[in-house]
Amino acid sequence: MPSKAHIKNIYSLKDKKSRQISQLFTIEGIKSIKEIATEDTIVIKELYAVPSMAENIPHNYSNIAQIVSPEEMKQMSSQSTPEGILAVCQIPSHTLHEWDKDTLYIALDGIRDPGNLGTIIRLADWFGVSDVICSMDTVDVYNPKTIASTMGSIARVRVHYVDLATTLSRCPVPVYGTFLNGENVYEELLPMGAVMVIGNEAHGISPAIEAVCRERVTIPRFGDSRTESLNAAMATAILLGLWRR
Amino acid sequence: MPSKAHIKNIYSLKDKKSRQISQLFTIEGIKSIKEIATEDTIVIKELYAVPSMAENIPHNYSNIAQIVSPEEMKQMSSQSTPEGILAVCQIPSHTLHEWDKDTLYIALDGIRDPGNLGTIIRLADWFGVSDVICSMDTVDVYNPKTIASTMGSIARVRVHYVDLATTLSRCPVPVYGTFLNGENVYEELLPMGAVMVIGNEAHGISPAIEAVCRERVTIPRFGDSRTESLNAAMATAILLGLWRR
Repeated sequence: MPSKAHIKNIYSLKDKKSRQISQLFTIEGIKSIKEIATEDTIVIKELYAVPSMAENIPHNYSNIAQIVSPEEMKQMSSQSTPEGILAVCQIPSHTLHEWDKDTLYIALDGIRDPGNLGTIIRLADWFGVSDVICSMDTVDVYNPKTIASTMGSIARVRVHYVDLATTLSRCPVPVYGTFLNGENVYEELLPMGAVMVIGNEAHGISPAIEAVCRERVTIPRFGDSRTESLNAAMATAILLGLWRR
Repeated sequence: MPSKAHIKNIYSLKDKKSRQISQLFTIEGIKSIKEIATEDTIVIKELYAVPSMAENIPHNYSNIAQIVSPEEMKQMSSQSTPEGILAVCQIPSHTLHEWDKDTLYIALDGIRDPGNLGTIIRLADWFGVSDVICSMDTVDVYNPKTIASTMGSIARVRVHYVDLATTLSRCPVPVYGTFLNGENVYEELLPMGAVMVIGNEAHGISPAIEAVCRERVTIPRFGDSRTESLNAAMATAILLGLWRR
């Protein structure tokens, strides 16, 4: 049974600072934990379930699983109504050592909304994009809200936090940025090997990153629409769909 | 100055029943109200602003605008921190009398999430789709949360609630449904004139609507991904992007 102090430590993982110090994060819910347990890319260090959830403990983790009371679960969970199964995982340390020239990468320049980041990771997973490269000011993927919204896709997509301008200036594949005044994306030949940069929800791609974008593309608006912009996750969905045509 | 009873009536428009009886709905925020005032497709019946928002009242509605106290605004608003400008609008009565055989339509079969519906309307606006045809069990577009998430696009997209199976069985343009076992959407020639059906977030397209879908398409998954499904709004974004290629 976890001590009161330990429960408090688990709860504190909702805060970025605690995650950075311990290099741990939490993931909740049957679906997500099953995917993590199956994929074997993220190490589960501790696993807690309430009695009614005991049967949902993945077999390969039954040796470390601990049954806790609903009250204890509530104290360790960051959710207001916890599903009843929670894993403490090690933050994976991915390094982007080598670029694959035939692969599509997604780069995020200052995405701030946890839900948008989660949705983008789900989309990357669907379209077979294995690496998402984030600027240091992009929201932390290991915050509980983002982890929940990836719905398990975090187990199959590597998320890197880097000095984005430096990384992109040195990468050997073409860097595509989306701008309001770029080339019509329908008229461009999009190469399989590329980095696709998505900008911040309100301000788009920052000047430092714009300087390293070698190609500028635009998703055209149709008809009489005067709508101002697409949400960052929507733009990602449309671009990934077109990239894979 | 609105009476206490009138303020209560405005607040009650957050509930579907009140909207149905009065055929009125509310819309809040500068951006959305400006778009409504410009487009001239939705009639603003009443307009309220707090003193600090007075300068944001659209000129063509200054004759009906009323200044209210922040306290009164809080009582009529459905938001916890109101932006300070609120319009009471007439629910437009659109009829889908004639089908245009060269136009793309979106049909929604039981979309339940207000945010998803709002996002789909924004996407329709971006891609020049003027009519979104909803099954009767699709969430009400005039609820404040959906209206807010359309970010003004509601002024340019007509939303119809109909008996979807009957309507689609009689329509003269091909009806495309998205299914897990349809034709690869990348290998299909998607005609400009078509209805694209998006199913419920959890259950997909219902059997009654499946029966009237003449074409079955699938957005393929790439790589080793085992992710189960795309969110309904994401699928809409990808399909609209491909339809317009």
